[in-house]
Amino acid sequence: ALSWRLQAEFRRGASSSAFAPLDLFYKRHTGSGNPEANEKMLQVLGVKSIEELMDQTIPKSIRTTRKLSVGPKRAESEVLAELRQIAKQNELRRNFIGCGYYGTIMPPVIQRNILENPAWYTQYTPYQAEVAQGRLESLLNFQTMVGDLTGLPIANASLLDEGTAAAEAMSMCAAVSKRKKLRFFVDKDVHPQTIAVMKVRAEPMDIELVVDNWQQVQWDGADLCGALVQYPATDGTIHDYTSFVENAHAHGTRVVVASDLLALTMLRPPGEWGADIAVGSAQRFGVPMGYGGPSAAFFACRDDLKRLMPGRIIGISRDAQGKPALRMALQTREQHIRRDKATSNVCTAQALLANISAMYGLYHGPDGLRAIANRVQRFARTFAAAVGVGVSEKAAIFDTVRIDYPTTEAAQAVLARCDAAKLNVRSLGPRSISVSFDETHTRDDLQELVSAFRGPQRPCSGEELEQIAASLPPSGFGGLEPNLAQAFERTTAYMTHPVFHEYRTEHKMLRYIHQLAAKDLSLVHSMIPLGSCTMKLNATSEMIPVSWPEFSLPHPFTPPEQLRGYQRLFADLERDLADITGFAAVSLQPNSGAQGEYAGLMTFLAYHKARGQHQRKVCIVPTSAHGTNPASAKMAGMRIIPVGTDAQGNIDIAELRARAEQHRDQLAAAMITYPSTHGVFEEGIKEICDIIHTNGGLVYIDGANLNAQMGLTSPAEIGGDACHLNLHKTLTIPHGGGGPGVGAIAVTEALAPFLPSHPVRPVASAHPDTAIGPIAAAPYGSASILPIVWMFVKMMGSDGLREASEQAILNANYMAARLSPAYPILYRGKHGRCAHEFILDLRPFKLSAGVTESDVAKRLQDYGFHSPTMSWPVAGTLMIEPTESESIDELDRFCDAMLMIREEIRQIEQGRWDPQHNPLKYAPHTAEVVSADTWDRPYPREIGAFPASWLYARGKFWPRTSRIDDVYGDRNLVCSCPPVPEMMHPSTTG
Amino acid sequence: ALSWRLQAEFRRGASSSAFAPLDLFYKRHTGSGNPEANEKMLQVLGVKSIEELMDQTIPKSIRTTRKLSVGPKRAESEVLAELRQIAKQNELRRNFIGCGYYGTIMPPVIQRNILENPAWYTQYTPYQAEVAQGRLESLLNFQTMVGDLTGLPIANASLLDEGTAAAEAMSMCAAVSKRKKLRFFVDKDVHPQTIAVMKVRAEPMDIELVVDNWQQVQWDGADLCGALVQYPATDGTIHDYTSFVENAHAHGTRVVVASDLLALTMLRPPGEWGADIAVGSAQRFGVPMGYGGPSAAFFACRDDLKRLMPGRIIGISRDAQGKPALRMALQTREQHIRRDKATSNVCTAQALLANISAMYGLYHGPDGLRAIANRVQRFARTFAAAVGVGVSEKAAIFDTVRIDYPTTEAAQAVLARCDAAKLNVRSLGPRSISVSFDETHTRDDLQELVSAFRGPQRPCSGEELEQIAASLPPSGFGGLEPNLAQAFERTTAYMTHPVFHEYRTEHKMLRYIHQLAAKDLSLVHSMIPLGSCTMKLNATSEMIPVSWPEFSLPHPFTPPEQLRGYQRLFADLERDLADITGFAAVSLQPNSGAQGEYAGLMTFLAYHKARGQHQRKVCIVPTSAHGTNPASAKMAGMRIIPVGTDAQGNIDIAELRARAEQHRDQLAAAMITYPSTHGVFEEGIKEICDIIHTNGGLVYIDGANLNAQMGLTSPAEIGGDACHLNLHKTLTIPHGGGGPGVGAIAVTEALAPFLPSHPVRPVASAHPDTAIGPIAAAPYGSASILPIVWMFVKMMGSDGLREASEQAILNANYMAARLSPAYPILYRGKHGRCAHEFILDLRPFKLSAGVTESDVAKRLQDYGFHSPTMSWPVAGTLMIEPTESESIDELDRFCDAMLMIREEIRQIEQGRWDPQHNPLKYAPHTAEVVSADTWDRPYPREIGAFPASWLYARGKFWPRTSRIDDVYGDRNLVCSCPPVPEMMHPSTTG
Ligand SMILES: Cc1ncc(COP(=O)(O)O)c(C=O)c1O
Ligand SMILES: Cc1ncc(COP(=O)(O)O)c(C=O)c1O
Ligand SMILES: O=C([O-])O
Repeated sequence: ALSWRLQAEFRRGASSSAFAPLDLFYKRHTGSGNPEANEKMLQVLGVKSIEELMDQTIPKSIRTTRKLSVGPKRAESEVLAELRQIAKQNELRRNFIGCGYYGTIMPPVIQRNILENPAWYTQYTPYQAEVAQGRLESLLNFQTMVGDLTGLPIANASLLDEGTAAAEAMSMCAAVSKRKKLRFFVDKDVHPQTIAVMKVRAEPMDIELVVDNWQQVQWDGADLCGALVQYPATDGTIHDYTSFVENAHAHGTRVVVASDLLALTMLRPPGEWGADIAVGSAQRFGVPMGYGGPSAAFFACRDDLKRLMPGRIIGISRDAQGKPALRMALQTREQHIRRDKATSNVCTAQALLANISAMYGLYHGPDGLRAIANRVQRFARTFAAAVGVGVSEKAAIFDTVRIDYPTTEAAQAVLARCDAAKLNVRSLGPRSISVSFDETHTRDDLQELVSAFRGPQRPCSGEELEQIAASLPPSGFGGLEPNLAQAFERTTAYMTHPVFHEYRTEHKMLRYIHQLAAKDLSLVHSMIPLGSCTMKLNATSEMIPVSWPEFSLPHPFTPPEQLRGYQRLFADLERDLADITGFAAVSLQPNSGAQGEYAGLMTFLAYHKARGQHQRKVCIVPTSAHGTNPASAKMAGMRIIPVGTDAQGNIDIAELRARAEQHRDQLAAAMITYPSTHGVFEEGIKEICDIIHTNGGLVYIDGANLNAQMGLTSPAEIGGDACHLNLHKTLTIPHGGGGPGVGAIAVTEALAPFLPSHPVRPVASAHPDTAIGPIAAAPYGSASILPIVWMFVKMMGSDGLREASEQAILNANYMAARLSPAYPILYRGKHGRCAHEFILDLRPFKLSAGVTESDVAKRLQDYGFHSPTMSWPVAGTLMIEPTESESIDELDRFCDAMLMIREEIRQIEQGRWDPQHNPLKYAPHTAEVVSADTWDRPYPREIGAFPASWLYARGKFWPRTSRIDDVYGDRNLVCSCPPVPEMMHPSTTG
Repeated sequence: ALSWRLQAEFRRGASSSAFAPLDLFYKRHTGSGNPEANEKMLQVLGVKSIEELMDQTIPKSIRTTRKLSVGPKRAESEVLAELRQIAKQNELRRNFIGCGYYGTIMPPVIQRNILENPAWYTQYTPYQAEVAQGRLESLLNFQTMVGDLTGLPIANASLLDEGTAAAEAMSMCAAVSKRKKLRFFVDKDVHPQTIAVMKVRAEPMDIELVVDNWQQVQWDGADLCGALVQYPATDGTIHDYTSFVENAHAHGTRVVVASDLLALTMLRPPGEWGADIAVGSAQRFGVPMGYGGPSAAFFACRDDLKRLMPGRIIGISRDAQGKPALRMALQTREQHIRRDKATSNVCTAQALLANISAMYGLYHGPDGLRAIANRVQRFARTFAAAVGVGVSEKAAIFDTVRIDYPTTEAAQAVLARCDAAKLNVRSLGPRSISVSFDETHTRDDLQELVSAFRGPQRPCSGEELEQIAASLPPSGFGGLEPNLAQAFERTTAYMTHPVFHEYRTEHKMLRYIHQLAAKDLSLVHSMIPLGSCTMKLNATSEMIPVSWPEFSLPHPFTPPEQLRGYQRLFADLERDLADITGFAAVSLQPNSGAQGEYAGLMTFLAYHKARGQHQRKVCIVPTSAHGTNPASAKMAGMRIIPVGTDAQGNIDIAELRARAEQHRDQLAAAMITYPSTHGVFEEGIKEICDIIHTNGGLVYIDGANLNAQMGLTSPAEIGGDACHLNLHKTLTIPHGGGGPGVGAIAVTEALAPFLPSHPVRPVASAHPDTAIGPIAAAPYGSASILPIVWMFVKMMGSDGLREASEQAILNANYMAARLSPAYPILYRGKHGRCAHEFILDLRPFKLSAGVTESDVAKRLQDYGFHSPTMSWPVAGTLMIEPTESESIDELDRFCDAMLMIREEIRQIEQGRWDPQHNPLKYAPHTAEVVSADTWDRPYPREIGAFPASWLYARGKFWPRTSRIDDVYGDRNLVCSCPPVPEMMHPSTTG
């Protein structure tokens, strides 16, 4: 807000100046940046200084001597002002590019109260469903909307983007196929980025990808496991695929349809003409293009495919009172359980963006969406009629018009005029251009566009456009010739559930958004000590630039010279992330940690191939690794060799050596998490890397735990060849309740030539010849959330980042020290220290009191806390990661809760509490239960709901359901809004 | 966010176009803009159309035939884009003007989570304290901070601005004085706008205002009731007023000190050297200047003056469980009780801005504030040393440096160079200039400023500035010569309460802000049917521009040619508000409704005087008028003649006529609220106005009820001469929990020449010769919230505004119809209709069941609702105003609650419930009470807390205290954070 004042200041590190600004960020980010608190914690640990603690924690052999070079600690206002200047270097031209990305209006009430509201964006995936009923309800709305619009019964709660959604559909078709050799067909008029992503994904899975004209498929002998067509096609044409589907099904081929939710408000849905799977992007439902992302992809399928569905599915189950309650369904099919047998590696997806799109659907309702679609179609039809050349006025079109010129010169002249008028259109080849319309376009836009297409000889007036519009056939397809009408006109209702009809006014929308938010425990309430998730502060000044139009509006295929601000931001980030990881080069493209793993492994394979080592396909993955590691390796076509851990939880080096040597000729990679998923800086890490290298492999470091490393050591210094950084963990992108994320990868000099590029808009820093194809649909993945990371890095500076990691480690060790008298700490390093997280072993209490880790997790809700990570990486445990952003009193409050729960367990152990009828087993306690007139439990109500005094003082966060029955829900899968409105949306009827 | 797309579109009303945008605002603003709901409501009312209802409601004689001319209904995105263009016409230069307004950094976490959070800004004044403990706690923090910094024991919860705060202090001194003739001294080095406001206020109160040099007061015979000095003075000089105060007190003169909170972190506080009252602005504590406002003024005084204190005071009392609880204290001294005997007319003040300033204080704490002060002082001292000319390096200065040049030419040359460098400084007369520094300035700013002052011959480098800074005395005044050190150096601690030491990290601040928000019932939860308050939607797209730097940053005394955007906005608003009211001219200056009343009456007096009618000072005020009416008239020096109402609640016309005729030679004005405060369109209004006019008076229309009039009738058409518009009611500025507000006034052609102007920066539309002096400190009052109104008016358009008023009336009549079988409706119009609000008479239930209006109000909290206006305008009643923004189901839900409460009352009437021990008497029910193990009440717990099923479904809003004991708190007044931290800030210790 103060940009103009501070423009000049930022160029130098003003901190040594008597006039330096005072609003330094690092003090606000790190929770115990106050010397007294740290003094106290060090004292509890019996060390004299942070330095001493680091010496005890991080093996000397990997301790860095290098100081980070990202700059000094800086002031919030100053860094924000600098970014403002960078943003201004993005030129915002009018956009008609289309190709899967469209302008949209995010309703302001949704922008302010969801996108810009920490109560919506700070949570992780809703693993603790009892304190996440709000966003679970919203995601159920999303699934219902997608299911209705596609005409398919089962939809998931989002995937990363349309390109990868298509690739996931391909994998599903392959998985259900009984064929040995796998072929998959893609129509040539599918968006080019989708085809490119599918190509990358097909190759390691040994799927032959056939890209051709759908009308010319020779079905006999085609032997396809699946086929994907786009509806409408990338050039705007709408085809009747009915006979294509019939042929496909007759030949045992599954059909995937890439589509557009807005078009489906008027088009016959794929589910009605036989599609097995529908995929696409929900971006144009209220999520600005953001230069490519983030936005939610959708995925829907027939019922028989549901157990192979990728990503999260929200379903309805019941709670301990028998009332309906929501939670993630069918989790056993996900990677964290199935590992290399999982059908997908998707973990973080696009929950926040799916919620925004769902709310957009609620805000407009079916009629409002259809009105938007009608208007968009009117623009396209009017344009086609006004321009005339090579466009059939009668054709079935929705939002996109393709114009074919007789000569290259004619087409180039049009492109030149568009450029001069600062209108971005899409070139479809030397003689063809397409333009796409969206909700944001105005008549003036249309007039200028038509004028540019026609040239100075044939100017266009607003009146002319109105006249054309008045002469158009009725919106939709019913007014076209009968065969088209029948093929395309949607006749079935959609979004009929009351929830899509309730929220027409801003007050209603506002209250619904806040009602849902009030059901969810987030970082605005208390710390969320989810191990491996790094739930640190997502600072406001980091979030502010995300809303700036210069970052949120650009189309991903905008010519880069129009977006110098973004280019500068990417260059800065690539440099700084390379510095932090110690590597040489960075790709910002992956949209999640898991996608980063996949990108890294694909880079490894490209490297090996470039050296003639095509056979290197073995990947060593410790059994302690996160499920995404084996799942990603599997997707990369690798053979996974597991390696166990020793009694101390460290990787069994002897076993690793044996396996590496055994597979020395095939060894491609090992995937190592460091510090380990057990929260320990393993001493043997250098040796491990050496063994892999010696045997011809490369080491992939899972960067989930980078928060223990910044400025202290680095993935490069421990011996890795590549890593991902969950920018949504260490680098402060909020988790959004399950996404977005960015899994940028960093690699050595040797691997840099193979980092992914993009077929439509090459990545500036990628190698033009050797780069692998895209692993995401947009060149820079989720570009619009990268300013968050830029702000964080620039504000913290080199020292601030190091101090953050130090504080994270100090906080974890302090908590471990406070909790260890009560709970066994599962693993520790050589000197008894943990890294930035640690594991509490709950298994003894199963024996002593019948109390499980789940009982403790649910009981923590009664204390106003979100549980730590449950039963991962070790079943029967809780893994605690405090992060540097929590203050000592919050750490103490959490420890107090855990210690009080330990005393509760003792009540059972000592027979004072009944082993079945006690507050742990009945946890969590809802307001409804504790204020009911009947109470037949053998403990007082207060012990149920107010076990600690701070709950009165701070205000109690009430879980909204009693404990949820997962098994029941999976057995009776319901994953769209149930037909009885009272059931799940009682708020609409109360 | 989509500005660039829509720039051109807005110039025409695009709504008849086939390409018109679809995001029309009026549909989102009016709750029942859906035909079916309206149909249903009309049916209940037994009318066929809205038109018919209007015919039955609004007297024909005043029904307008004029269509508003504010334009068509428009789209949100389009209007926002237009305003973006207007904003860009404000040029943001670097500012050093000072004079009571300073740059400041609003911490982003406060901006996003308070200023931009509807859970903080949508409420009214905390009349229902049990559901307002959050902002009451924050306001208590504000009072504590002000009390500590000023060194005085009692502070209030904000006033409108520093100028009026000084005037209020003057009134207080006059009120406690036993003198007959009142003289009040003001030092000439007080800010000029403060002196100007005091002059306006002194005159009608018959106070002789003496403006002179404080050092030359001849105490003997001065006969002063009070004296005001500024500390530091407006030119930056800091004086030792010790002997001045001694003299004053020796002569029975009260001393008021205008001061600066930031300076007081290093300066000996006024309370320590004898000041009786301290006033000033808290603006620089985190609230951007906003071209003058809004921001909070502070007011603190000695204990013996507390019962005369203006504005709201938050105090600690106890609830029915004996626990500490907050509420507004000493309300009996306020205008709504004391009317023309009140000491002030302040009603709406600056609650939201006081909360922001309080949070700023918490965020920085005493040390952080002192560091900011030190840095500001360093800038000023360095500047003084670097420029040298006519500045004493040793003088006690804080943030402002005055430079006296030997010649006018020398000074003018400097001003010219500053202008060329786009630096705004303050000219203090022909040979003197001053510059003021603030938190936002950088070394580059300082360097450029020094360079401009020195001229091209003596350039200034950053290094030179660093060297100067290094040679400065220690910050504060301890390093100066001993007598200065002793006089000025602050030695006492401030903000020692733990609450000022807790919230250093963003996570802690964020959680505190959300903890407090969760205690307050706001429009994000449910409708707030406060009669006379018009709690309609405060739409997001209206709020968005408030945060734009072009509107939030300018200094109020910026040369107007730099702010063409603001000029355009003001011109548009003046035109549109004149159109809506039917008047000829508008002043945007008043900061509240009450201040509008005062401004209007002062305009009347100026008009009468201009016509030689100095004697016209009688003001007729109906007994049904809001307390601010008589209080404002009293402040304007008028004699108030009350007039009663007849049995139907209408003004007793016979009595009015008699009084008017009786005072025909002195009659200045009558103040009429229309529709009446009883919620009725009185048929006699034209006759009333005629009577007043016939007798030489003018009619002032209290515009609180404008929401029933837009496009249907108008204050001008009913016969008024002037009105205020509570822009914070009808025109959608949020109430902020008790402010900000804008009480713009509109007047006839004849009165236009007298509308207020401003001595520093004349108001563009004001008459240069005849305008009255300012009634607020800034030329355009609270300029930075005027974009809210502009957005609303432009988006609604002429038809939208009329439909809003129609819908407000329909909603009110529908509710009245639903409730009238259960509750007597106190007054109705000729055809049995109410206006946009109506009164339920609760007095019968006092007799039948011992149930009071307060019992019902508190019981509504259990149902999740905020009570309607209680016991105003008639004791023992509830006044309901639904507004147009509520949908039929929300109206129904509220009616259901009221009907269920009626049935509860029946339980008592019929002896089934104990008259003392029943849910109404025990209301509200806290979570703590209903989940306590002991429960000795004769009704089930569910009946207490969950009396309606929707409370389970939507989520229960829990009141945080049991019923609060007002009397106890007033008897034991505590209005700062209590010394035992556990008591009021348990969250800090939990
Ligand atoms: C160790 C580890 N690896 C990988 C991942 C996957 O990251 P993402 O969810 O961003 O795909 C996680 C997620 O928690 C993790 O903890
Ligand atoms: C009828 C009436 N007049 C005047 C006022 C005073 O307005 P303000 O609070 O803006 O000073 C009010 C406030 O509610 C009111 O209802
Ligand atoms: O605020 C009121 O006094 O209405």
